[in-house]
Amino acid sequence: MITLNLTLPDAGYPIHIGQGLLDQPDLLLPLLASDKVAIVTNEVVAPLYLARLVDALRTRGIAVVPIVLPDGEDHKDWQTLNHIFDVLLAERCERSTTLIALGGGVVGDMTGFAAACYQRGVPFIQIPTTLLAQVDSSVGGKTAINHPQGKNMIGAFYQPRAVIADMRLLDSLPDRELSAGLAEVIKYGLLGDAEFFAWLEAHIDALRARDMTALEYAVRRCCEMKADIVGQDEKETGVRALLNLGHTFGHAIEAGLGFGTWLHGEAVAAGMVLAAATSHALGWLQDSDLARIRALISAAGLPIQAPDLGVEQWLTLMSHDKKVHQGKIRLVLLQQIGKAVIEETLPRAILDDVLSGPHIQSRAH
Amino acid sequence: MITLNLTLPDAGYPIHIGQGLLDQPDLLLPLLASDKVAIVTNEVVAPLYLARLVDALRTRGIAVVPIVLPDGEDHKDWQTLNHIFDVLLAERCERSTTLIALGGGVVGDMTGFAAACYQRGVPFIQIPTTLLAQVDSSVGGKTAINHPQGKNMIGAFYQPRAVIADMRLLDSLPDRELSAGLAEVIKYGLLGDAEFFAWLEAHIDALRARDMTALEYAVRRCCEMKADIVGQDEKETGVRALLNLGHTFGHAIEAGLGFGTWLHGEAVAAGMVLAAATSHALGWLQDSDLARIRALISAAGLPIQAPDLGVEQWLTLMSHDKKVHQGKIRLVLLQQIGKAVIEETLPRAILDDVLSGPHIQSRAH
Repeated sequence: MITLNLTLPDAGYPIHIGQGLLDQPDLLLPLLASDKVAIVTNEVVAPLYLARLVDALRTRGIAVVPIVLPDGEDHKDWQTLNHIFDVLLAERCERSTTLIALGGGVVGDMTGFAAACYQRGVPFIQIPTTLLAQVDSSVGGKTAINHPQGKNMIGAFYQPRAVIADMRLLDSLPDRELSAGLAEVIKYGLLGDAEFFAWLEAHIDALRARDMTALEYAVRRCCEMKADIVGQDEKETGVRALLNLGHTFGHAIEAGLGFGTWLHGEAVAAGMVLAAATSHALGWLQDSDLARIRALISAAGLPIQAPDLGVEQWLTLMSHDKKVHQGKIRLVLLQQIGKAVIEETLPRAILDDVLSGPHIQSRAH
Repeated sequence: MITLNLTLPDAGYPIHIGQGLLDQPDLLLPLLASDKVAIVTNEVVAPLYLARLVDALRTRGIAVVPIVLPDGEDHKDWQTLNHIFDVLLAERCERSTTLIALGGGVVGDMTGFAAACYQRGVPFIQIPTTLLAQVDSSVGGKTAINHPQGKNMIGAFYQPRAVIADMRLLDSLPDRELSAGLAEVIKYGLLGDAEFFAWLEAHIDALRARDMTALEYAVRRCCEMKADIVGQDEKETGVRALLNLGHTFGHAIEAGLGFGTWLHGEAVAAGMVLAAATSHALGWLQDSDLARIRALISAAGLPIQAPDLGVEQWLTLMSHDKKVHQGKIRLVLLQQIGKAVIEETLPRAILDDVLSGPHIQSRAH
């Protein structure tokens, strides 16, 4: 096991990465504020891992309230959040009850937001069970639910007490979910580490074959970068915005098709292609850079074309994104592979071209 | 105008108290993060003051989105909160849009919570229009909505950028609301300032007659005490809990009768009598202390008997309160007038007696 530390001005927490960590309750026990926890998971993860975690805690004398949510991004809404609150209240969970998120990005985001709001804040711990959650969403304290008009529109910055990434949990991850996680992994190479991007090109097949050494390195490198960036800018007033590479396009895809139609990682993958295409249109990326990016995303089993939402709907959905500032769409673009920048003055014509160009699927007739 | 400052480790903000402040947009303008605000108010306050504030801001070039909520504690729920989000999204409000709460405690709590959650946090400003909000709820950053199983169960600690208490707004306050505000005023005397309690005994008629000098002094003294306490303990891990005097009983009354049946201040008033009666049963307060407390609360136009919820329902509702810790009800009690303490080891028999004793209304047959 290796442990990274995310350092914040008034807090900080460990990110443990290793194999078999789910069976090590000693990692959890010192973090609990009382002898009671609520484990929030979903109906896919519960049959696989819930009993193991519950048993490990109960044998140590911890009272456990399990809360099983429906699976999927389309349930990342108020109704499901309120179900968490209903159970917490029915089970008399107090301010000292620790919430444990056992699941992927949706479970982590909802559990974190529930922890932020329940009785104005209770402790929580992330145990991510998907690659996407391990490399990205479980780290950094962004929590949220979706609103019909926009992804992650209602939420909080609320940090966990620890992130425990057990690589063995990826054994059960469906291939499609593994690929979705690789989208965020590729994002880290693209936005800030050309060497890591090249490493990914060389190891993409090993990663898809679930080579544990390769996966563990990828998770570690992404968490290092995320911890570094979040440590500099917890509330996203500056550099943290770079982590949204591909996400303004991606969120528009998710909202435009209906949450849950494409996986978040798939939408981000196509969104990164659009961001790269935009950067290419600006003359920042070369033909060969764009080709490398498309090739790696494709090799990861991810889409390299976005759905055809129509330019007007694209712009409407993108203008609802949180990255909008003073009415202008702020896009994260690439000056080169490994160097992202925030661009606010993009000519509309370039965006129009990209959103109706070759990186958009032909519309079915 | 006088200005108090609430000092926090990583922030702090002014509390302006004076007459005619609503017409001084210069107090607001330096606090805005952009040239766009959303004013959240309710259908009672809107006809009285909304146009004045909107006009004052629009003439200074600020774009204003008005959001008018239904009135009353029974609307302090997710549905109404979501209406705020719907409008903010429809009007393309961004992270730099400042929310302004123009109303009483319900509007302030909901606006603050909306500001805490919308796009993971936008700035907000409190313009309290009721005495209760001016002396208590607008200061200190507690925001929340109710859950059917408990008051203020879902919320956040989220501080405003400023509190602007315009005493002239109290001119339009119904007598019943004025009395409800006096409950919180009396609370400050009881919990920490015997001299102020005595001043209230001498000036209760002037306060009910809306003597501006008396009201302004009361608001100032309460805000001083609240700023001092919150500055010591923003997240209520210690001394801030004393501000809940009367509230564990009071919240049970509100939830037990249905939110909105009794005003919050009325429930707190009866709750303070029960806290005093409990303190008296413990031998801490003398007969004469209990008599003074009942007399002042009654003179303020407030109930000195609580409804008969039945002991079992009392205990159930009280055990849902956020002040519960390790299964024990934590009550704020009075060692003397002007000195509150937190008590966790209250014998159940004493509570049973109080909850079925003379400070409970006879049940209607």
